[in-house]
Amino acid sequence: MTTHIPYYKTKLTGGFWKLKQDLNTAHTIPAVYERFKETGRIITLDFETPWPQGQEPHIYWLSDVVKWLEGAADTLAIGQGDNELREKCAWIVEQIAKYQAEDGYFNNHFQRVAPEKRWTDWNLHELYCAGHLFEAAVAWKEATGEDTLLNVSSKFVDYIERVFVTEKSAAFQTPGHEEIELALIKLHAATGDEKYLRLARYFVDTRGTPGTIPNVKAVQAHKPLREQTEAEGHAVRAGYIYSAMADLARIDGDESLAKACRALFANISTRRMSITGGIGSSAAKGEAFTFDYDLPNINTYNETCAAISLAMFARRMSALEPDSRYGDVAELCLYNGILAGLSLDGEKFFYECPLEIHPRLKERNERFPITQRVAVFSCSCCPPNLNRVLGSITDYLYTKDADTLYIHHFMDSETAFDWNGKAVSVKQVTDYPWDDHVAFVFKGMAGRRIAVRRPGWSDNCSLTAKTKLTNGYYYFNITSDEETIQYDMNVEVKLMSAHTNVWEDIGRAAVQRGPVVYCLEAIDNGDNLRALAVTPDAKFSLKPDDRLGLCLETAGWRVKVPADGKLYAPYNEQWAEQTLRFIPYYAFANRGESEMSVFVRVK
Amino acid sequence: MTTHIPYYKTKLTGGFWKLKQDLNTAHTIPAVYERFKETGRIITLDFETPWPQGQEPHIYWLSDVVKWLEGAADTLAIGQGDNELREKCAWIVEQIAKYQAEDGYFNNHFQRVAPEKRWTDWNLHELYCAGHLFEAAVAWKEATGEDTLLNVSSKFVDYIERVFVTEKSAAFQTPGHEEIELALIKLHAATGDEKYLRLARYFVDTRGTPGTIPNVKAVQAHKPLREQTEAEGHAVRAGYIYSAMADLARIDGDESLAKACRALFANISTRRMSITGGIGSSAAKGEAFTFDYDLPNINTYNETCAAISLAMFARRMSALEPDSRYGDVAELCLYNGILAGLSLDGEKFFYECPLEIHPRLKERNERFPITQRVAVFSCSCCPPNLNRVLGSITDYLYTKDADTLYIHHFMDSETAFDWNGKAVSVKQVTDYPWDDHVAFVFKGMAGRRIAVRRPGWSDNCSLTAKTKLTNGYYYFNITSDEETIQYDMNVEVKLMSAHTNVWEDIGRAAVQRGPVVYCLEAIDNGDNLRALAVTPDAKFSLKPDDRLGLCLETAGWRVKVPADGKLYAPYNEQWAEQTLRFIPYYAFANRGESEMSVFVRVK
Repeated sequence: MTTHIPYYKTKLTGGFWKLKQDLNTAHTIPAVYERFKETGRIITLDFETPWPQGQEPHIYWLSDVVKWLEGAADTLAIGQGDNELREKCAWIVEQIAKYQAEDGYFNNHFQRVAPEKRWTDWNLHELYCAGHLFEAAVAWKEATGEDTLLNVSSKFVDYIERVFVTEKSAAFQTPGHEEIELALIKLHAATGDEKYLRLARYFVDTRGTPGTIPNVKAVQAHKPLREQTEAEGHAVRAGYIYSAMADLARIDGDESLAKACRALFANISTRRMSITGGIGSSAAKGEAFTFDYDLPNINTYNETCAAISLAMFARRMSALEPDSRYGDVAELCLYNGILAGLSLDGEKFFYECPLEIHPRLKERNERFPITQRVAVFSCSCCPPNLNRVLGSITDYLYTKDADTLYIHHFMDSETAFDWNGKAVSVKQVTDYPWDDHVAFVFKGMAGRRIAVRRPGWSDNCSLTAKTKLTNGYYYFNITSDEETIQYDMNVEVKLMSAHTNVWEDIGRAAVQRGPVVYCLEAIDNGDNLRALAVTPDAKFSLKPDDRLGLCLETAGWRVKVPADGKLYAPYNEQWAEQTLRFIPYYAFANRGESEMSVFVRVK
Repeated sequence: MTTHIPYYKTKLTGGFWKLKQDLNTAHTIPAVYERFKETGRIITLDFETPWPQGQEPHIYWLSDVVKWLEGAADTLAIGQGDNELREKCAWIVEQIAKYQAEDGYFNNHFQRVAPEKRWTDWNLHELYCAGHLFEAAVAWKEATGEDTLLNVSSKFVDYIERVFVTEKSAAFQTPGHEEIELALIKLHAATGDEKYLRLARYFVDTRGTPGTIPNVKAVQAHKPLREQTEAEGHAVRAGYIYSAMADLARIDGDESLAKACRALFANISTRRMSITGGIGSSAAKGEAFTFDYDLPNINTYNETCAAISLAMFARRMSALEPDSRYGDVAELCLYNGILAGLSLDGEKFFYECPLEIHPRLKERNERFPITQRVAVFSCSCCPPNLNRVLGSITDYLYTKDADTLYIHHFMDSETAFDWNGKAVSVKQVTDYPWDDHVAFVFKGMAGRRIAVRRPGWSDNCSLTAKTKLTNGYYYFNITSDEETIQYDMNVEVKLMSAHTNVWEDIGRAAVQRGPVVYCLEAIDNGDNLRALAVTPDAKFSLKPDDRLGLCLETAGWRVKVPADGKLYAPYNEQWAEQTLRFIPYYAFANRGESEMSVFVRVK
């Protein structure tokens, strides 16, 4: 069976993601903790201290805190973070262990505020919060070797199994907000205890069957998961349950689950995903998928957490079966739809990541995504989700089976692990994604096989090894005990168009270089970005920027304002040359409120 | 002083507007009456009959009915309609006269449902309903010579003057929804009684002064009207109050009002008006103007009543000062933004008139304009407003002063009137707007001067008279007692672009022929209209259609669907030739639900 090589086996040694991971450790994790402290999320875990005025614990506050805890524990597990961070974590762990109910339940809202509501409403996120607690437990164990939270989790799971499987005494039978399924699979991976897998299978198998919860697309419960072929409903929940499905398909060799996963992944990636990896295009429909090719630029939802959930799903699909399409999507999410949720200073966040901003549209009094990142949200799932993505970013790099190491992504790093009883290591030396070259150094792998992903954006990769390309992976054999392989991906700046069914983008193109999608901002290019255009054969020059990343410039065009100032006049479009500056999409909205656009007209 | 030649002096003898006027008489007026009967709007005028279950008279129901009454009376005044129509009207008139309160007040909601609320809330439309009652009174007098409603109005106005001017005993001092001002001016024109003008001036002068009603842009009360230079707030209210301002500017020779009118008209027509004459681009902002150049195609409001109010304002500006810009805007409204509100069968209505429809957007659960006209609205101001526009459409044709007859619009018609004691007549023979030629026959006008509007869309007009062009009007003298003048406007099909600040329309053009704006519908051109394009030099052939009007065809293009079906791929736009069929905008949504677009890409 293919397994993941967990993030804590890898140390980032430089480059793009090390900067982001260090930013997370130094700024994002402390910032999120401070916001959670200010808003009462931390103190309300101490059941003996009355909650401050106006800070009654909310139904999902537990998930926010334990998601932060997971991110903080990831950070400790990779040797970052200080003693103060460890103590903050330990205090949280201590409260949870202390106030876990006799029967195994834990949730600061339901125990303290509304005990009578326990298990009464499928949509109150209890199992979701439990799932995040279990994920934190696994991370805490990895960070400290300490079993407290795993023990809490074991007891909690026994209780959940009793209520949901044995007694069926809850008012619903499967989660309203999925997440616990993938968390249970993590508990199994960390402990080897089959009971976790059993409960995960139960929730996956019962979902969408009559009488469990309302049969609605909004929560992927309109039919059994194995029969679903189109991504529906709340996009974050979708990505989480699809992730659990992909895990179970792999672990159980469950072909019917694998088939559903393939169909759902294909539906998302070929019909329902922004070019940034953002998913869930409608806020009004419930932060949800809408219909094929409905991918608006301005009024899209594209929640940061949804891009995270898609990356999680894609990562698990890469483990299920090596096919570069999965890594391509994960990469789009990581470099674009996810990272856009975080400001460059690491302390402010977007929930929604639109592909186009016109600041004055606010004046229409309609609902549009906010145009500037903020320090805190009342519903604060995205910030701690970024904490854990960045803390465990190296989770994305590798999987292995008996004889093959799969290299899915490229980060300057060193990884050491045990492979069937033998200590081996792999090193990547690269300035990816800015540079298109990676030097791999494999140690102790003579006789093993390597599979390295060929990115979908590359037309022409070369490897200093004799390779065979299968499903987007180059396969080659290692023959010596220390072997260095050079990999060149020949990155080019490309104009990318959307399918013509994405009507809003017809005649427009996004600029992409490797996995990085670019955008225009008015602060660089003047107001009215829709008046700008590139030619199909535009040549781009590289303009590195310490803060924004590698920027691009090209000789472009701007439609001239009509000289007569008339509102309507016979068509007579006139152009002026203008140098256009593109910045990485993830860096937008870091220099004040500004018009922004990913897609630009092609003339 | 320049005066209007009222609609009932003209008989339509054929052509475009006669068809619409006949449709109004035969279908729209009966249809609106039936809907009003079904919904309780009619019977609740009889105070002695209990209202049917669920049909408690609403605050604005009176305005709906009397607006219908005005349209029906217009129809009778031009010699159309039958005895049954006259009786329906007479019954309504009788109820109003019978149940008018002793003090002069009349409103079936406030008298029957909420007497304690009379004059307590500026936003409850009491003065608005009164205004529409006064307009109906004038029309009823014109239709029948009968004074009942004029007497009701006189008594009501005396009462309003006492409450608002003398006693100031209402909880507010000026209307929340303007309309009464222009109605009072109509009463003055019909009766010569100065008291009406006095009250109109009072409301115009006090509006926007402190303490009268909240100082909000939503109802044009943010500052005194004379100081307003940008069109703000609810677009229908704006058009109505600007109309009264233009009337008073003309009647009183009030230059400060004229100056404000010019600024407001310029702001609308050069920055805040759709190419169809639609105004008020945001529903969420209160069916209101937003900001300069914010003219969305899909999610615009463009209420039918707002286009009507703009045409009313423009018509009054034409009387204030001959300048073809006013007639140009009135014409755009009449042929496009107004007429689009009515189905071709005359019995279904749009409130909102978008410039682009994508039927599936409904699935996003956001607010979009409806995509198919309906027989009735709960708030039903637009249908009876169409009744009166069509009944009195010939109001738009002419104004005169001591020596000059101004011809603002072109309709196949005969008009006879008294000019300084002399019976004169003018005849237009034309198939306008489909044909660009008008033959004018002037009788009894030797020694008079004629001014005929040169449409802004024409590059090259010719007249069989020696003329001088001033502010868009050709002036010429009549020398004999019966004189025929030929006028050719050389209509061409044009691609019209919006100002580049209307960012949504950059690179796109609307097709316009004379005053008629065209659109594409998927029913003719296939789905995904954004995939279509015309070339800048497109030649159009004329394709008359009995039902839709003159249609146009051109050799155009459609972007090919990508052969590989990929959602994102390197830009490689491929085209296929396709004949494009454009129909008049006013005729859209008459053949089932369909994608529609006014603007089309130019390639």
